[in-house]
Amino acid sequence: MDETGFVMCGALVHSTDAEPLEIMQHKCIGVKEGKIVFIENEDALSEKIKEFGIPQTDITYLKKGQFLCPGFVDTHLHAPQYPNCGKGLDMGLLDWLQTYTFPTEAKFSDLKYADMVYRKAVRRVLRNGTTTGCYFATLHTDATLLLCDVIKVKKRNYPHITPIVTPRFALSCCQELMSKLGDLAKAYDLPIQTHICETRDEVRIVGETFPGCESYAAMVLAHGIYLSDNEIALIKARNSAISHCPNSNFSIRSGVLDLRRLEEARIKVGLGTDISGGYHPSMLNAIRTAVFVSNIHHIEAEHANYKALSVHEAFRLATLGGAKALGLDNRIGNFAVGKDFDALLIDPSADGSHVDVLPDDSFSDSDDRNILSIYVAGRKVIS
Amino acid sequence: MDETGFVMCGALVHSTDAEPLEIMQHKCIGVKEGKIVFIENEDALSEKIKEFGIPQTDITYLKKGQFLCPGFVDTHLHAPQYPNCGKGLDMGLLDWLQTYTFPTEAKFSDLKYADMVYRKAVRRVLRNGTTTGCYFATLHTDATLLLCDVIKVKKRNYPHITPIVTPRFALSCCQELMSKLGDLAKAYDLPIQTHICETRDEVRIVGETFPGCESYAAMVLAHGIYLSDNEIALIKARNSAISHCPNSNFSIRSGVLDLRRLEEARIKVGLGTDISGGYHPSMLNAIRTAVFVSNIHHIEAEHANYKALSVHEAFRLATLGGAKALGLDNRIGNFAVGKDFDALLIDPSADGSHVDVLPDDSFSDSDDRNILSIYVAGRKVIS
Ligand SMILES: [Zn+2]
Ligand SMILES: [Zn+2]
Repeated sequence: MDETGFVMCGALVHSTDAEPLEIMQHKCIGVKEGKIVFIENEDALSEKIKEFGIPQTDITYLKKGQFLCPGFVDTHLHAPQYPNCGKGLDMGLLDWLQTYTFPTEAKFSDLKYADMVYRKAVRRVLRNGTTTGCYFATLHTDATLLLCDVIKVKKRNYPHITPIVTPRFALSCCQELMSKLGDLAKAYDLPIQTHICETRDEVRIVGETFPGCESYAAMVLAHGIYLSDNEIALIKARNSAISHCPNSNFSIRSGVLDLRRLEEARIKVGLGTDISGGYHPSMLNAIRTAVFVSNIHHIEAEHANYKALSVHEAFRLATLGGAKALGLDNRIGNFAVGKDFDALLIDPSADGSHVDVLPDDSFSDSDDRNILSIYVAGRKVIS
Repeated sequence: MDETGFVMCGALVHSTDAEPLEIMQHKCIGVKEGKIVFIENEDALSEKIKEFGIPQTDITYLKKGQFLCPGFVDTHLHAPQYPNCGKGLDMGLLDWLQTYTFPTEAKFSDLKYADMVYRKAVRRVLRNGTTTGCYFATLHTDATLLLCDVIKVKKRNYPHITPIVTPRFALSCCQELMSKLGDLAKAYDLPIQTHICETRDEVRIVGETFPGCESYAAMVLAHGIYLSDNEIALIKARNSAISHCPNSNFSIRSGVLDLRRLEEARIKVGLGTDISGGYHPSMLNAIRTAVFVSNIHHIEAEHANYKALSVHEAFRLATLGGAKALGLDNRIGNFAVGKDFDALLIDPSADGSHVDVLPDDSFSDSDDRNILSIYVAGRKVIS
């Protein structure tokens, strides 16, 4: 199937710059060597399969109610913290790191433990429809290479894995280390990720530790709740992105991000689960929780002009927005000719579904049970 | 099995006044005619089954990792709004009522439609582990009787259904109607439920419509976000309860309830899904979201002495707290001799589970897939 390509015909749902949710009915999407080679109306199908040499037998018609959407892009998650999902909703970040995170991460010196956890974590994240993840690992080189292997095993080839320079956050690094990491990223043209302005405590302590430091900004910055206007301007100037992790912000009591403030400054924003600061590995949960966070701002603005995030906009953040935040929107994030076919086949009426589909419904709430198949770069990795 | 009773042996997890979460290992719980007749250690089992005449063949041993917990008590949900779950996260209460709720509820003049929706709604609510629900219906008598039939069909006998006087909220009632409804409740000794202080707009409008009205308080009051100190005192004096519906409050942008303020006033509080103001029919979701709501208060109190709700406390609100709010704690809410056996058999490692159980785990996040069986008054209604 891979060499000759394939076609899927039915409804496509995705985001564009112009529309947070575009629904395209009765489309045929052609895939060859992992990439989308055409998106056409059904009447152009026979001509197109001839052009690309795709056999009739490799055309799949979606059933009524089913649709394809892009795989989710999780811009911030910690693979080694997967065992802690659901733990620690009873404390704030700094206590939580000491109590749960650091002891768990220390275990990754043991490759057998790392192998067990990383396999389960990557499998679960993928099962929830995340086809691209921006992972934090630990300081252990062997375990981290093993994480890359596990992701590769999930049908990703090495070209789909990008190393990323990862100081956990300024609290844990001296200025010399930060500057050497910057040199490293420049030398190998690598992205950088770190945590920024996650809690009020953290901002205060960072201010005390690095009094002269105004350059605490990099490429993918997780959280960014308590940014000053100057920091926002700096982030914009450097073309850095914020990973908004709503479940984490609620769970470990970090704060209530004002997404509109970042958008007004034209800063790129993606969504993240932040496993295990956030307890849920699904980007569907991140979408719903991002709407809740934004609704809090609407409530507290006392019905002024605050326009809360819509579900459709949150969906865009979880797909195209994340791709842009990671600098990968030339390759993933929505359905466009030339991009990888990273896609989810959704069936609102799937067996064992958590939701009932009623006669009047046009669209439905769902969870991983509604994701029938998952494609990464054109390969069906889960079905 | 019903006449001779049965025993289940294993771990029991429930709440008491003293402990938000009590874990009892290696217990045997005996059930006869729907009621719990003993809770004993394993060494007392042979004596107890003799005493109650329960055959050896009716003893079930839970598997490793499994446990029993009380069925959830949903103190506030609208059965006719089930078709709207997930709709309307883009507007506040008053617009949302006009756009989604009133048109849908009008359809319940059609008994065929009512039958279709009510069957699905009750089934789904039950499937999520809710064994007691405090439902709103519509103005249509026949459709509402049908709802009672549907709940009865789910193995509840009529003694398990209590009618409840239900003015939707003051906005929709004149003072004469409110006072007649009060008389009705008194004459038949019926509970009352309504919505109270759900949004800032509502409070303002109610104030304008009933300028002299200080008695807008009844038995089960949904929401109660914007109560004045006087109203809180009145609610306490009348021994009324608040149904806290966190998902609804976030979804339709009502507000951020301060639960601790109600608890300090010693007001009874239960949790509700408020389908479809809330989009999720599961009380597990209500538990998690209640913690988020409370965490917001922790965040905004700038780390002062605000003690956010723990997951264990939220679990208690969803079981024993709800039973108290509905005045049913003599019959349901936790495991005690004489109470109905309303119970969920939970298996963190259930087939198709959403969560991975790792070697170090003691307890896990879960969803309806982890609920293997559901018992209502001793009868297995789902397995
Ligand atoms: Zn993080
Ligand atoms: Zn309601």
